[in-house]
Amino acid sequence: MREVAVIGVGMTKWGELWEKSLRNIFVETALLALDDAGVDRIDSLYVGCMSSGLFVGQEHLASLLSDYLGQNPVPAARVESACASGGLALRLGFMEVASGMSDIVLVSGVEKMTDVTGNEATYALGSAADQEYEGYHGITFPGLYALIARAHMEKYGTTREQLAMVAVKNHNNGSLNPLAQFPQKITVDSVLNSMLVADPLRVLDCSPITDGAAAIVLCPLDRAKKMKKPIVKIIGSGHATDTIALSSRKDITWLESTYQAAKKAYAMAGKEQKDIDIIEVHDCFTIAEICVIEALGVIEKGKGGKAAEQGLTSLQGKIPVNTSGGLKSKGHPVGATGVAQAIEIVKQLRGEAGARQVKKARIGMTQNMGGSGGSSLVHIFERE
Amino acid sequence: MREVAVIGVGMTKWGELWEKSLRNIFVETALLALDDAGVDRIDSLYVGCMSSGLFVGQEHLASLLSDYLGQNPVPAARVESACASGGLALRLGFMEVASGMSDIVLVSGVEKMTDVTGNEATYALGSAADQEYEGYHGITFPGLYALIARAHMEKYGTTREQLAMVAVKNHNNGSLNPLAQFPQKITVDSVLNSMLVADPLRVLDCSPITDGAAAIVLCPLDRAKKMKKPIVKIIGSGHATDTIALSSRKDITWLESTYQAAKKAYAMAGKEQKDIDIIEVHDCFTIAEICVIEALGVIEKGKGGKAAEQGLTSLQGKIPVNTSGGLKSKGHPVGATGVAQAIEIVKQLRGEAGARQVKKARIGMTQNMGGSGGSSLVHIFERE
Repeated sequence: MREVAVIGVGMTKWGELWEKSLRNIFVETALLALDDAGVDRIDSLYVGCMSSGLFVGQEHLASLLSDYLGQNPVPAARVESACASGGLALRLGFMEVASGMSDIVLVSGVEKMTDVTGNEATYALGSAADQEYEGYHGITFPGLYALIARAHMEKYGTTREQLAMVAVKNHNNGSLNPLAQFPQKITVDSVLNSMLVADPLRVLDCSPITDGAAAIVLCPLDRAKKMKKPIVKIIGSGHATDTIALSSRKDITWLESTYQAAKKAYAMAGKEQKDIDIIEVHDCFTIAEICVIEALGVIEKGKGGKAAEQGLTSLQGKIPVNTSGGLKSKGHPVGATGVAQAIEIVKQLRGEAGARQVKKARIGMTQNMGGSGGSSLVHIFERE
Repeated sequence: MREVAVIGVGMTKWGELWEKSLRNIFVETALLALDDAGVDRIDSLYVGCMSSGLFVGQEHLASLLSDYLGQNPVPAARVESACASGGLALRLGFMEVASGMSDIVLVSGVEKMTDVTGNEATYALGSAADQEYEGYHGITFPGLYALIARAHMEKYGTTREQLAMVAVKNHNNGSLNPLAQFPQKITVDSVLNSMLVADPLRVLDCSPITDGAAAIVLCPLDRAKKMKKPIVKIIGSGHATDTIALSSRKDITWLESTYQAAKKAYAMAGKEQKDIDIIEVHDCFTIAEICVIEALGVIEKGKGGKAAEQGLTSLQGKIPVNTSGGLKSKGHPVGATGVAQAIEIVKQLRGEAGARQVKKARIGMTQNMGGSGGSSLVHIFERE
């Protein structure tokens, strides 16, 4: 297998982009990534998207997007793993370059979520759960994560304030990210007084509904070395699944798919958790970040709530988590999130992260998750 | 890249399977494939599915299916390229084994289409077209293929009877396939007198709405050689896209994506069209088979209509096409079709095709297509 580098990244400001359609936001970001990479032709295209069928009535998405990017007849594949679709696209693009099948691969993610009503969006997102054993009984994702939060509080003494501190930290970081959907700083008080969604989770514990896309360009390391940009390699990729329904798990506070995916990524990269300088994790709800950093080995099991409280994961902390603002502040166009996480890591490792730049960051990690942890993708990046 | 073999295939009878849900039909076929392969653990899973979101309200499909097959935490990816989703799953599974990422890979396709009304199914299938420039103006797939048929008749003198002969041939073959949804033999007269759907296409020119799944197991050739089954290798894989909308093409009678995908598959396999003994093609409508065999180089451009008429593509012909009955008679659960095509080729090359066995078949090909040809996947198989 060949070594693989990221040579281009592209992203525009996320939000409620009513004046643009899915194909527009994809093409804008893809062109930025191609421009950043200094290439105008690709050999293959991957797009991660959770549910363009339910959100905009469009399947056959990769054909559409390669067409509108002017790249057909290139092979183009749409991949789906709910909110981890972007991470899955990254893994398959990585595999395609590593295997020698293709040299220049565009990996993208996109979701257009605001063209439907709130109820329709909730239904579409709910299709990431087990529809027959969870969805049809009325539970939606805030409810599923509220169950996890309540169990974590009961089992480990995690406090309501600690959940809020995750949101406060991520909005602090997001306030330094010009592309974030909600760059407002917030306080623990504002989280605690925001609207209750599913006890104990309030609206400021939840990531928003977002339109957005993200794109990166991959190529073999040899070729990347001929270019002028700082080189960022992908050195590890892990992918794992767990039961899709929460009720089938022994312990709903433990994200086994994230643990398994990280184990594989660490092994492929030849690194341990202590080697990682920065991490982007899937904070779809505040409790998710807490469980994820435990599963990644950043902090001991049950102690994730203390990380934000003690500043361990802040921008100035020992291991900054979600320097981009995370899903919480940057936004969460579900299929695009996994690719945007990779973009943040690449920008940090290149030293292009502006006001939120972490000094001396050399190795970064992304963790992207589908549903309530039914699937996870973990990638490790290293500055050459 | 390593050589890749198919070591197991699994499929059950297709039809209107109201008593089973999507997960059931997937698990049944996957277990048959694992049993045929003689393995009980896999390293990775791919599932091709066009629109489980619109058909049954379930995304996050690969997580669900790896869970219900008892295979988590294995990596599991759902891929989508409209009606070519199964072919895309096959290509990515092939790539995963060829690259050395995994040894035992389960490649499957599934679609549960009869849980919605006819109008809802038409809408879901229509999402394979360009929704903004085709779908929203009211055209559906029979209409798009009717435009192609009319243009082919005008340009090349293809006759209404020749279209019917494609359906007659495929139902003849399907009558010998115990797993076919519509194994009835039909006549040219019955096609010509069947209900008009979109002039000139009648209902017996159209593939049906079907519930079904299909699964195969891939592994490196070295490992396959240790098993007792006849060995079938995948020696070529081609994937290409074209404009998604018909109106953007110079010539709507020509399937450029199929031509490009075949060119790549022939090149990878080191074979020419004349080396191929049998082909399974994407006859979603009778006109599709005619255009496809032209794009594959089986017959001269414009003369596809004569192939069925002259018996060239019949079971006893020079190059049998759709020995399984094709989409027309076997059924067309859209995401499963590309995998089922591979199963028919493997059965033929193994000599396990029963009453429809083609003698001395050694090299076979599959062609799977999304929408009106916005994407195509071509694979070439060889008996070791």
